[in-house]
Amino acid sequence: MSGTLVVGQSGGSTATLSATLAGVLEAAQETAGIDRVYGMCNGIEGLLEERFIDLSAASDRLRAALRRTPAAALGSCRYALAEADAERALDVLRAHDVRYFIYIGGNGSALTVQSVNRWSRESGYDLQAIAVPKTIDNDLWGTDHTPGYGSVARFAALAAMDGGADSWALRSHDQVKILETFGRNTGWVTAATALAKTEESDPPHLIYVPERPLTKERFLQDVQDVFDRYGYAFVAVCEGLRRPDGSLLFASELAVDQDAFGRGQLGGVSSMLSELVATELGLKSRTDKPGTMQRACISLASSVDLAESFQVGGVAVAAAAAGETGKMVTLERAPGPAYRVATGLIDVDEVAGKERPLPDAFLNRAGNFVTPAYLDYVRPLLGEPLPNYVRFRAATVAKRVEESHPSA
Amino acid sequence: MSGTLVVGQSGGSTATLSATLAGVLEAAQETAGIDRVYGMCNGIEGLLEERFIDLSAASDRLRAALRRTPAAALGSCRYALAEADAERALDVLRAHDVRYFIYIGGNGSALTVQSVNRWSRESGYDLQAIAVPKTIDNDLWGTDHTPGYGSVARFAALAAMDGGADSWALRSHDQVKILETFGRNTGWVTAATALAKTEESDPPHLIYVPERPLTKERFLQDVQDVFDRYGYAFVAVCEGLRRPDGSLLFASELAVDQDAFGRGQLGGVSSMLSELVATELGLKSRTDKPGTMQRACISLASSVDLAESFQVGGVAVAAAAAGETGKMVTLERAPGPAYRVATGLIDVDEVAGKERPLPDAFLNRAGNFVTPAYLDYVRPLLGEPLPNYVRFRAATVAKRVEESHPSA
Repeated sequence: MSGTLVVGQSGGSTATLSATLAGVLEAAQETAGIDRVYGMCNGIEGLLEERFIDLSAASDRLRAALRRTPAAALGSCRYALAEADAERALDVLRAHDVRYFIYIGGNGSALTVQSVNRWSRESGYDLQAIAVPKTIDNDLWGTDHTPGYGSVARFAALAAMDGGADSWALRSHDQVKILETFGRNTGWVTAATALAKTEESDPPHLIYVPERPLTKERFLQDVQDVFDRYGYAFVAVCEGLRRPDGSLLFASELAVDQDAFGRGQLGGVSSMLSELVATELGLKSRTDKPGTMQRACISLASSVDLAESFQVGGVAVAAAAAGETGKMVTLERAPGPAYRVATGLIDVDEVAGKERPLPDAFLNRAGNFVTPAYLDYVRPLLGEPLPNYVRFRAATVAKRVEESHPSA
Repeated sequence: MSGTLVVGQSGGSTATLSATLAGVLEAAQETAGIDRVYGMCNGIEGLLEERFIDLSAASDRLRAALRRTPAAALGSCRYALAEADAERALDVLRAHDVRYFIYIGGNGSALTVQSVNRWSRESGYDLQAIAVPKTIDNDLWGTDHTPGYGSVARFAALAAMDGGADSWALRSHDQVKILETFGRNTGWVTAATALAKTEESDPPHLIYVPERPLTKERFLQDVQDVFDRYGYAFVAVCEGLRRPDGSLLFASELAVDQDAFGRGQLGGVSSMLSELVATELGLKSRTDKPGTMQRACISLASSVDLAESFQVGGVAVAAAAAGETGKMVTLERAPGPAYRVATGLIDVDEVAGKERPLPDAFLNRAGNFVTPAYLDYVRPLLGEPLPNYVRFRAATVAKRVEESHPSA
């Protein structure tokens, strides 16, 4: 079976999803039966609008540059396919003799692969459709972790280390700092801030995730307790924090901020909690909200994540060439202390539209920090070890003024 | 003249002010007449409370680690000396036979050196007091730039490159993004986001700084114009933006957020402007606010800034040992295309309490972007060249559906 391979990037950015594109291009060029390689501009939207980039002759230099490029070099989209799109999609696939469909994305993208695969089967059009996982959210079932997560975890850890060093140095002045990370429904990104802590007194002191509902009273009590113990408090919060009734602590109510699923845009829970700290506890409080840089900062990317992200692109092409379809590439961690990963395939039907929260074993009983089990899980994904910072914690020189100046 | 050298770190964090401490330690250990080296815990507060760390025997390993440590490893403070502190300060200096006083900080710290120097002169106590510049704000007079600025400029440029790549990839979905940087009174940090732009259509599209007052109408018109031209807009704003009447666009009104000078805490102007974009223009808008990570991210520090920050520490010790006092170390750029810098000294009286805004030549006439003259000034301070990202801008494959499927 020979024909054209199309590859697209979909959903939110990661630091490494263009490294996956590079992996797809390299494998496609080495695979017999793949006559042409087209990139979809802005994912499935570009396919429906017949907007393609011919990448058949991608050079070594271009592929190397893609491995140093964050976010979607082809452009991305947040488009949910409807049945009404079937005919148009099949027309475009036929017109360009597309026989291999590789889609790099998250839960939503698995749905896209599911639809395209079903439509081609039903119309008797021979197509191999493979999903390649990509999301900072690390919330896909069937894979140990998702490409993109190791890098956002490293960024979150460094944001807590650097913001934490700043808080420690100025603890007499800045009393409370709240770091807000991404995560609409799961706390995987926020959890990684725990890697910044070496001693019990180090930031972060508290970590709140959507998997554990939070009340205003509980939050204020925790912050006051930490402040009383250490003289300052550094708190990491997930943008998608929930109340006990399941509602979001903060979501924009502006109509224009509703997404395709009618969900209000997040980002702002840290400001809300910071004002609460100032008004209710009378403590000076400030917020850090790195925003989209956290998911696109390839300068701080994990070397392990970069390598795995490139690898899964090649695995997807090999699977398609081998006749697989309707599958997503997975990463399977071998048991044992040493970090070893193998790739596999899972039926997209088992993945599409599902979300994997932080397991209970990764969250402490109090619901305000992670467990050692989580740290063991995440550490190998970060690549190079995190840096160590110098912190002079206590004076070592004896006071002399009183004895030398009894008057004083 | 022999005795103890004390060194302190004061004010806000930079990525490289502990590299300056390393430079001080190395020079102090090599300088005859310096018997002991004490670090002040939390700057001048630590001196008044007689909280010192004995760094006389600092190892090569410790100094190397300090060069990889952001923020103040000794702890910092925001304490403004009063005349009432004079006697206590002199008692402590005498008790420890302190003859060399090195203070690493910004405008406020120059005032501290000014006071300590004057008090020792007036009381006939022999002390050499030297200020070492350190501030991300780059707002000190008498120096081409301040240690710490090159690194925050690099961070701001990367925040705009990465957040910008994210915006470009999802431009069909996220319509407007507003990146907020530090800068209470000057726009030096915000200006550096301009380095992210390679083509006219690239982010950032608009840059607003306190040196140019901003009206709501003007801001909305600019954003609409950019959106109409490129289909999305990426805007960089300084936290200290001003209205034409000089008042801040945003400052916390909470009493607890007032600083020692009665100034409300900043951080939030991006949220205010983002809501304006949503409500007035009906465009989906989000904000990135890296916060304190931007001034403490040594992982993204400028190699030039790290080297210069270490260097000025040694220059300060040499100046003190040579009998200089009441001076601040300066960086003087040699004229010509090649970047060459020499160090010098300036009287702290000429620096203390003054602020240097962005010069008119660095801002465009419209007041919404920087000029090439600014880019020429800042580029050498960033160290290694910024990365280049791949961006496939336009489809190259001809549409075929219509001719192949006349029915479609």
